[in-house]
Order: sequence, then C-alpha cells, then structure tokens
Amino acid sequence: MDNPIDITVTEEDTTLPPQQYEYLDHTADVQIHAWGTSLAEAMEQSAVAMFAYMTEIQTVDSTDTHDIEVEGHDLQSLFYQFLDEFLFGFSAEPFFIARKVKILEFDREANKIKARGYGETFSLDKHPQGTEVKAITFSNMQIHEKVGRTDVYVIIDI
Amino acid sequence: MDNPIDITVTEEDTTLPPQQYEYLDHTADVQIHAWGTSLAEAMEQSAVAMFAYMTEIQTVDSTDTHDIEVEGHDLQSLFYQFLDEFLFGFSAEPFFIARKVKILEFDREANKIKARGYGETFSLDKHPQGTEVKAITFSNMQIHEKVGRTDVYVIIDI
Repeated sequence: MDNPIDITVTEEDTTLPPQQYEYLDHTADVQIHAWGTSLAEAMEQSAVAMFAYMTEIQTVDSTDTHDIEVEGHDLQSLFYQFLDEFLFGFSAEPFFIARKVKILEFDREANKIKARGYGETFSLDKHPQGTEVKAITFSNMQIHEKVGRTDVYVIIDI
Repeated sequence: MDNPIDITVTEEDTTLPPQQYEYLDHTADVQIHAWGTSLAEAMEQSAVAMFAYMTEIQTVDSTDTHDIEVEGHDLQSLFYQFLDEFLFGFSAEPFFIARKVKILEFDREANKIKARGYGETFSLDKHPQGTEVKAITFSNMQIHEKVGRTDVYVIIDI
C-alpha cells in the first residue's frame, strides 16, 4: 500500500492470533442545556430534553398523563429529584415517556414540586430506540435565574 | 394512568411549547484491556482492539499492508504513538484498517517501534460503521509487564 517495496502477504502473515483484548468501563455523558422565562419552564424543558434523548420525541403522543411529586433540600437537589423521578417512571412502571411536562405546583420555600407529564407508555413498536439514559448527575449542575430568563444545565449519564 | 382520579387531557394540555433545549458536550470513552506473552504482543492486540471498535473486524481482509514507525520518550508515550499512528492511518490516507498487527522491530533502548498492519482500505460498502475513535488518551494508561504475561490498558475517546 504505502510500502516502498512490494510486500507479499503470506498465509502465515494473515494467520490470526486468538483475541486477547476486552473493552472495559464504557462511560458516556451528555450535557442538557434548557431555558425558559421561569425556572419552572426551564425545568419542564429539561425533562422533555431527557425524554427526547431516548427516542424520536415527535413519535410520542400526549394521550395519557403521569404525575410526580418530589422534594429536595435545596434547588439543585430538587432539580435532580424532579428529573430522576421522571426517569424512574420511564425505567419502571408505568414506563411513561412524556412529550410535554407541566409543573403544577412549585413550592420554593419547601423545595417541592408537583408536575404532570403528558405522553404515553413507551413502546418499541411505536417509539424508535434512542440512547439509554442511565442516571441524572450533579456534575457541574447549574441553575442561572434572571428576571424573565432562566437557564439550567444538567449532565446525564448515557 | 397512575392518577387516582380521571384526568382529561385537553387540547390546551397537549399544545407544545417551542423547543428550548439543546445537547452540549457529548463525551464518551472506553477502556481497552489487551494482553499477551510479551509487551509487543499486548500492544499488537490493543491496536486490533481499537480497529475492532470501528467496525465488525471479521469483515476486514488481510489483503494489504500498512507500515508505521514511531518513537516515544518513554514506554507510555511509545504506546500512545503506536496507537495514534495507526489511528492516523485510518482517519487519513491510506484509510487503512488492520485485521492483524505485527511489531517487526521493538527497540526498548530508543523507545522505537516498527510495525505492520495487515488489512485493507476501509470501505463503508464492506465494513459496517462502528463507533468513531476520536483520540487515544494517556488517561489511566497502564503497562504491567511480568515474565510471560503483559497487560496493557488504554482509554480511547469515542
């Protein structure tokens, strides 16, 4: 190929040794950036962003609802719990994937959220398999609240 | 779904807001563990392991050769250069993917290696697209030499 002299590939050359390798510790993550006019809106968007990583989100119909209720000890842990609870509702019964998320009650004093997902039960017949979301992380989590515009950043393990 | 009372999903409920999210900073890596009776054999195996991540390696025929020559300032950088040179020969001309790698000369004093890959030009018609290997890293690189058995570990960015 790029050899100055012609190399004849002999049968011995191409005899394959046994496989003596393996792959370990596959890790991957992706950072979600979501925004809105309020923290609630930015968080709603981040939950949909998580679900949109799992499938082609436009294949999900909002025919059903799934409600969650979470509590944190501060804003960051509340954000974590909020996403984690929706992830849990996807990974186990009712295997719910949301096309839209609405925060119904947001108690900033008590760090509590009640939220509703609009969507349906995940089905491989209907929803193309995207990437598995393994976990929500606290890694470099950011919440930037300004008047009229809030940005949130969260890294999820995939 | 799991709601105690029946919730009617109205048209307003399912009206979708604009997308206010994006995905940033997707990172992923995998650790390759390879071994052999000698360091040369373990390194040969690690190069094949890298190529085997890029496609279904059994689709690669050893009809051609691609030679490399690399030098390091120590054993770890030599190992890095060795893999990086094969990666480079895949990413650019001659777009060579090896089914088998043979170290022809291994100068431990000067930290130099001459090696030959047996394989062919990568072609999507013939070789299923695997995962893109973006870079070799020094992260947690390990070379464990014992009499009769050497293990190497290298993390590659994908």
